Amino acid sequence: MNVSGTGIGSGIAIGRVVRMPEPLPEPVDRPSALSPAAEKARAAEALAAVAAELRRRGEQAGGAAAEVLEAQAMFAEDPMLESDLDARVDAGKTAERAVHEAYAAYRAQLLALGGYMAERATDVDDVSQRVIAELLGQPAPGVPDPGHPFVLVARDLAPADTATLDLEQVLALVTIGGGPTSHTAILARDKAIVAIVAADGASVLRDGDEVIVDAENDLLVTDPTPEELEDAEARRAARAARLSAPLTPGALADGTPVPLLANLGSADAAVAALAAGAEGVGLFRTEFLFLDAATAPTVAEQQLEYGRLLQAFDGKKVVVRVLDAGADKPLAFLDDGHEDNPALGLRGIRALRAHEEILRDQLSALAAADAEANADLWVMAPMVATVEEAEYFSALAHELGIRVAGVMVEVPSAALLADRILRASDFASIGTNDLTQYTLAADRLLGTVAALQSPWNPAVLRLIAEVGAAGRASGKPVGICGEAAADPLLAVVLVGLGATTLSMSPAAIADVRASLLRFDSAQAAALAEAALSADGAAEAHAAARAYADGIR
Amino acid sequence: MNVSGTGIGSGIAIGRVVRMPEPLPEPVDRPSALSPAAEKARAAEALAAVAAELRRRGEQAGGAAAEVLEAQAMFAEDPMLESDLDARVDAGKTAERAVHEAYAAYRAQLLALGGYMAERATDVDDVSQRVIAELLGQPAPGVPDPGHPFVLVARDLAPADTATLDLEQVLALVTIGGGPTSHTAILARDKAIVAIVAADGASVLRDGDEVIVDAENDLLVTDPTPEELEDAEARRAARAARLSAPLTPGALADGTPVPLLANLGSADAAVAALAAGAEGVGLFRTEFLFLDAATAPTVAEQQLEYGRLLQAFDGKKVVVRVLDAGADKPLAFLDDGHEDNPALGLRGIRALRAHEEILRDQLSALAAADAEANADLWVMAPMVATVEEAEYFSALAHELGIRVAGVMVEVPSAALLADRILRASDFASIGTNDLTQYTLAADRLLGTVAALQSPWNPAVLRLIAEVGAAGRASGKPVGICGEAAADPLLAVVLVGLGATTLSMSPAAIADVRASLLRFDSAQAAALAEAALSADGAAEAHAAARAYADGIR
Repeated sequence: MNVSGTGIGSGIAIGRVVRMPEPLPEPVDRPSALSPAAEKARAAEALAAVAAELRRRGEQAGGAAAEVLEAQAMFAEDPMLESDLDARVDAGKTAERAVHEAYAAYRAQLLALGGYMAERATDVDDVSQRVIAELLGQPAPGVPDPGHPFVLVARDLAPADTATLDLEQVLALVTIGGGPTSHTAILARDKAIVAIVAADGASVLRDGDEVIVDAENDLLVTDPTPEELEDAEARRAARAARLSAPLTPGALADGTPVPLLANLGSADAAVAALAAGAEGVGLFRTEFLFLDAATAPTVAEQQLEYGRLLQAFDGKKVVVRVLDAGADKPLAFLDDGHEDNPALGLRGIRALRAHEEILRDQLSALAAADAEANADLWVMAPMVATVEEAEYFSALAHELGIRVAGVMVEVPSAALLADRILRASDFASIGTNDLTQYTLAADRLLGTVAALQSPWNPAVLRLIAEVGAAGRASGKPVGICGEAAADPLLAVVLVGLGATTLSMSPAAIADVRASLLRFDSAQAAALAEAALSADGAAEAHAAARAYADGIR
Repeated sequence: MNVSGTGIGSGIAIGRVVRMPEPLPEPVDRPSALSPAAEKARAAEALAAVAAELRRRGEQAGGAAAEVLEAQAMFAEDPMLESDLDARVDAGKTAERAVHEAYAAYRAQLLALGGYMAERATDVDDVSQRVIAELLGQPAPGVPDPGHPFVLVARDLAPADTATLDLEQVLALVTIGGGPTSHTAILARDKAIVAIVAADGASVLRDGDEVIVDAENDLLVTDPTPEELEDAEARRAARAARLSAPLTPGALADGTPVPLLANLGSADAAVAALAAGAEGVGLFRTEFLFLDAATAPTVAEQQLEYGRLLQAFDGKKVVVRVLDAGADKPLAFLDDGHEDNPALGLRGIRALRAHEEILRDQLSALAAADAEANADLWVMAPMVATVEEAEYFSALAHELGIRVAGVMVEVPSAALLADRILRASDFASIGTNDLTQYTLAADRLLGTVAALQSPWNPAVLRLIAEVGAAGRASGKPVGICGEAAADPLLAVVLVGLGATTLSMSPAAIADVRASLLRFDSAQAAALAEAALSADGAAEAHAAARAYADGIR
């Protein structure tokens, strides 16, 4: 029986399953046989041990993982939590039960706060499980180590797990829950690990089962036949060859150039992106400069960072997105209060406009960095919904010395008005993640509506086609900077719909380069037409595959 | 200087301004000169007086207002709040300051809970102000009574104010804040009061200023000239004549029928809707049967309610929407947990599908009620986003005995795939409120993004045109059941875009009927074309007005 899910990237892997241990059972609520003082001592010891272990793993992993694990360690040392726990022990509960209840209460508080805090609930669960395991003398839940390469099957992975995965041993990741924007999916994309998420049916798999993890086809083949194994191995080898092909510029088979750019979250990632063959930057996110800051960074501070970026991409195109903040990514100095639906709130250009000094500073810093560097700087605004907003941003950016000013198209209205918006902008860049979220009215971070979140949906493709047509008519560039560009077959469809550049995680560039070289412009257009006229996302994907197989 | 805002409906009024009193200043935090016991007695007396006054006003108003005011009275009697207040008085504060602080803390808790509870924050503020006024011996904030008809200008109105407005005295409502979905706007629509909301510039008006409140043109004319007054009076009189015109069926000037239907929230409103000339029901919301219930109502209970409705509309068309619940309107028996963005969550058909027994019961009850009545029952599903969802709903509805099964088009993808969705459905009905919300990615209940929420936006009109074209091509009906249909000029545009019926608050029917009779089919199409090709909502509205004025 084969299992379907959402493949991340286009890899394929063959291997034997190792399951992640299931969560520990809930500690029974029975009176403690020990004194409260003894139970408190047990709890304190377990909390300290877990905090130390998390820190040790963080130091071992380094980088962003270290920060995440440090934050988790602090969940084991929170004094409020400890006093809640002590009160429960004083009421006669066991340390295990008290830990369970105190963390459950803490989790509920985080969920009530919503937004970023609510997303930390999984981390709290993970710490709670680790402390209870420590108290019970059982192995901490986490990634198993069978001593040989394996396919890891889990409900979902916590940051502590993904951070310390031994990539030499993990052939592929399969999660039963999660979605295309889960921790697992982000890690898989970032590290180019073969992965399938939201694979409901994978819960029947047992340790030792042989499987083919076929991310390109959203398929987990269980109990494969010799023919299936042979085919999978051939595809795996072919992909390995592609990944080591020379770093030629992106282009279709007929030579039509399709520059392949990188999505970056900081200048630190520049070297790796260039090594992966990035021809420039299609989306530079600037949030990292603002998050965790009590006040907005100064013009000089920002200029330094932008200068580093532009220098790294000397002579190349660099598209910078101005701050995309709002109630979903709250900043101390740019917070307009609680919103019931932050994704539909005062975010992106709306928030910047309400605090124009922040936008002015950022644009000034970018212009100053540009004047001292030799890159081709383009700047764009997030969440533009109307022609008037596009006009506002262009005028301000040009006034402050930005030469090329454009808009992100991620709100359906911007796509539907693309002809008029491109009249007011130098270029458009389509953010397929948010565009899909709004077009389908399905939160991209919510697992229960994950089935709706495919950029293959013909409604989303239709909106992209509108922008593509407006770009052709006006002679202005239309880039793609959402995850859709990282899907090798969808990338060809996007070019067929009118995209002139594609920007993605650097890890995806090699696959996309190889895929583009299989099709000429007419074939890309035909592929797009086949997908556009389908009933739904699955049908569009199938129609594109059938067309591609026909010309292979 | 004229002031712009968002007009509700199409009325016009002339009168003198009376301003709502501004909120009381924040009580100073200074040590009390009285004993804590004396301060507590003062506070308790004031709280009791306010609770009694709110109840008295509730009894006087009756109906829904009584419930709202009873809920407010309970905010003055909350024991948790009282103990917080006592603690603050014990710490040496005055009763005024303690009341202010305790309600502020209460308010913050409500906001942290989000959703429905957060929306109660305004009510809490209102109670807090009333108690402090009582303590200070000042008049309670609220609607003034100058003894003659007046134009009420306020920041925003609390439910306690809107519920007890003397409609004989209020010529028009103008709010500086608020939006098209505020309490004030809802009241104005429901009672057909001339109103303009979100009129920033109205804050300069003073008591006694003469103004023209021109809701149709989103304009407040201050210091009007004699010519402006004469013109306004002529338009007011013309509208009064229209409102008392005979109840003919809705139609364009060339006789093209455009049935005018009512949006209803319960069968109780049927008589009033028929009296206003409703030719049937275009949207019957069924949430009232489910809200406040611990378990879903039984098939028999539901059948009884649907039977009452169908009997009231004997021989007429009745379109019922199945339950539209989700995390934004949580139900005890249909709650899948916290969502960060409930508007983009598991709501409408998504939630029903996850709890299919509730949908099956509702469809069975509707089919059984239909079998015993003589109305023309159509049933539709909310929040349909894909062809597959439309197929699912049609198959289930037909299986359970529903003859005509359709979909609400309120998600952009459903509009973009309308040709394919109508292949799977008997009809479509466009919910312009949600469609606007998702197309512009702007929460319809959030004031800070109210400027984006206009159904006049050409992007929204474009999606409506897609559904209209799909309806024409397939010969299937396309209705409109959002607030857009209640705007007399926009109603003509919608017909020009392909809508075959319009459904609205019964209070709007007379204005819309008169407006449709001014245009033939070709003119409606030209009006639609003019609006579609505009840059934005304001330009579309202006283009339509200019075209309409040209043929007047």
